[in-house]
Amino acid sequence: MVQDTATPIPPPAVALDETVPAYKAIQKFILDLIRGPDYGPGDRIPSERALAEQLGKNRMTVRKAIDGLVAQGLLERNSTSGTRIPMPRVMRPIDARTSLGITRIIQSGGSVAGNKLLHFEQTRASAQVAEHLQIKEGSEIVMFRRLWTVNDTPCCIETSHIPLGLVPGLAAEDLMAGQSLYGLLRDRYGIGTVTGERQISVAAGSDMEARLLGLPAGSACLLLRLEVYDEQGRPVEYMRSVNHPGLVMFKTSKAEMTA
Amino acid sequence: MVQDTATPIPPPAVALDETVPAYKAIQKFILDLIRGPDYGPGDRIPSERALAEQLGKNRMTVRKAIDGLVAQGLLERNSTSGTRIPMPRVMRPIDARTSLGITRIIQSGGSVAGNKLLHFEQTRASAQVAEHLQIKEGSEIVMFRRLWTVNDTPCCIETSHIPLGLVPGLAAEDLMAGQSLYGLLRDRYGIGTVTGERQISVAAGSDMEARLLGLPAGSACLLLRLEVYDEQGRPVEYMRSVNHPGLVMFKTSKAEMTA
Repeated sequence: MVQDTATPIPPPAVALDETVPAYKAIQKFILDLIRGPDYGPGDRIPSERALAEQLGKNRMTVRKAIDGLVAQGLLERNSTSGTRIPMPRVMRPIDARTSLGITRIIQSGGSVAGNKLLHFEQTRASAQVAEHLQIKEGSEIVMFRRLWTVNDTPCCIETSHIPLGLVPGLAAEDLMAGQSLYGLLRDRYGIGTVTGERQISVAAGSDMEARLLGLPAGSACLLLRLEVYDEQGRPVEYMRSVNHPGLVMFKTSKAEMTA
Repeated sequence: MVQDTATPIPPPAVALDETVPAYKAIQKFILDLIRGPDYGPGDRIPSERALAEQLGKNRMTVRKAIDGLVAQGLLERNSTSGTRIPMPRVMRPIDARTSLGITRIIQSGGSVAGNKLLHFEQTRASAQVAEHLQIKEGSEIVMFRRLWTVNDTPCCIETSHIPLGLVPGLAAEDLMAGQSLYGLLRDRYGIGTVTGERQISVAAGSDMEARLLGLPAGSACLLLRLEVYDEQGRPVEYMRSVNHPGLVMFKTSKAEMTA
């Protein structure tokens, strides 16, 4: 609707649930608020005083409600900047020019990164993988899949496909300690890498991926797909990354904008 | 699991449903395949011949199955490059240096862009919006919300908040034909703009947003949030964009990568 700009904005109608203890009703009000369209990760919720006034409740009751949500990890309290919706634990830069190395991203956020090599095999390229790598269907490739954790919680599963001819001798051991694939390519194989277009979408991972991320089957995840090329433009890797929707957010950095 | 690289890979076991017509069983097989972890938008499915061989079915039956999926828009056939999973209709660049103007992005994909101004009002900033705009809670702002369509299908809802003092006289009419906000800021108000960090996540839109996008309530959407600054670093806009998960994909372009 296009509103007459002279109309005063009515205060939002607040009707707390009277059938439960007041602090529980306040918690429900806050949860509805922060799950609504205006709020997102990192945002500050209204102050205790403002909530007490708006809801007509005692400030100590509001504090008890917030304490409970903080204890559940649904809010975060900071002595200087108020109470906020927590940021996802992994803020993953996806600018074209930034690294994909997830270990360093997690560590720079002050968390502990972990990883597990779930699968490593030499296999043959399916038609679909072959097309991404610009090789013949059935060509030999190395395929491996790694699970990444942030403070021991699984946050991301990445599956890589690489033509075997580019990485002779690559073995599971080379990747078991979360080594950077791009570091290995550069240092051992003399291959400098360039990312192609990164595609970011919402998609359900496979049932196995959902289970590994601790999500119900069919849950929507943040999906990243990309190809990596060598400096001559030859495809080196086709990669698919399934990210936990609650633990990972992608970000790009500041830049000038064209209209 | 870490497989012995000498072990031959067994062919996938294929058991078609025998209780339905063969073409329907083949359709189910293809749908399971393209919804599986290896496939994504733009990928080519195996050829009719390869499917006929793998499934032990007549090639004409395979063609009938694929024809049906093409007719439903679940696959796309191209005379030169085989049968593919359709790309989302809107491939939205989110590189730091690229425009946010969605009209041009949709048009450059060969589709027809449309838009509707859903809401325009002068209002007062909530604490949450005030923080994004670095203004006092209760300061006057302009808030507007636009719905974007691709070939008449709603694909994106964008909500902008701008301090009123920066855009005196801005009216609903100025935005009703899908005008670029950044063009208006530059041409009418002399404000050059710079984007801040863009945050990309998976989140449910509000019930209203889901309804407008033709999605069930609570559906996961591709969410983009950002602040826009003027050239002096003063916040100009806080924007929230809710994108249809099946119609919009974000992408970044090629670039050199650091290990």
